[in-house]
Amino acid sequence: MTDAITFGKPGDQNELESGAELTPRFNDQGLITAIAQDAASGDVLMLAWMNAEALSLTISTGNATYYSRSRQELWVKGATSGNTQIIKDIRIDCDQDAVLLLVEQNGGACHTGKESCFYRSINETGGLTKV
Amino acid sequence: MTDAITFGKPGDQNELESGAELTPRFNDQGLITAIAQDAASGDVLMLAWMNAEALSLTISTGNATYYSRSRQELWVKGATSGNTQIIKDIRIDCDQDAVLLLVEQNGGACHTGKESCFYRSINETGGLTKV
Repeated sequence: MTDAITFGKPGDQNELESGAELTPRFNDQGLITAIAQDAASGDVLMLAWMNAEALSLTISTGNATYYSRSRQELWVKGATSGNTQIIKDIRIDCDQDAVLLLVEQNGGACHTGKESCFYRSINETGGLTKV
Repeated sequence: MTDAITFGKPGDQNELESGAELTPRFNDQGLITAIAQDAASGDVLMLAWMNAEALSLTISTGNATYYSRSRQELWVKGATSGNTQIIKDIRIDCDQDAVLLLVEQNGGACHTGKESCFYRSINETGGLTKV
């Protein structure tokens, strides 16, 4: 475990896209979107949100840590369920407002118990079918 | 191409998680997050946003269509670049506020020309390395 990270201010488009420094663009609620993908299967597991502290903790501890918008608090994935996400790699996107976590998922990622939150497919008329 | 879809009002948690009807939970800006994943390689390509019209058009036309927050307009992926995303499947998540598009990606998904927007890895001290 390393020290917490303080993030620099986002620069211009060129610095965001080509720079070697992480300068996340948090939204006006101080949040950034985070996608969790199973590093082994490639399945997209869930989408959640991080504030600066959650992102810093995710990087420094290696355990996926999110910010719950409904509970307004940090949420270490698996802290109560045991279904932890161990970080294998973290990617940032071109304009630095979304992160992609490649994780080792223990148990289901979804609070419903399913492996992935994306367990239903949308058909052409707007109906849903389990995948 | 089928008719445009009108979405029903989101119900309670049970209906959202277990119902057979798509009732997207758009945020207070009328938007939902959309993840595009390469259906063949499994690579996560980009994260963008959709309003109701973009989601309806994506379902009915089979071409990924987003809403540009900066330009405040609909954006048919590839309309200017040619780098279209042909829909293979669309998934909705448990609480219906995020969609996952499984796409056939033509050319790079990222406006930088790269295959994926997530072309940099975050290291332990907050530095970025190309993957």
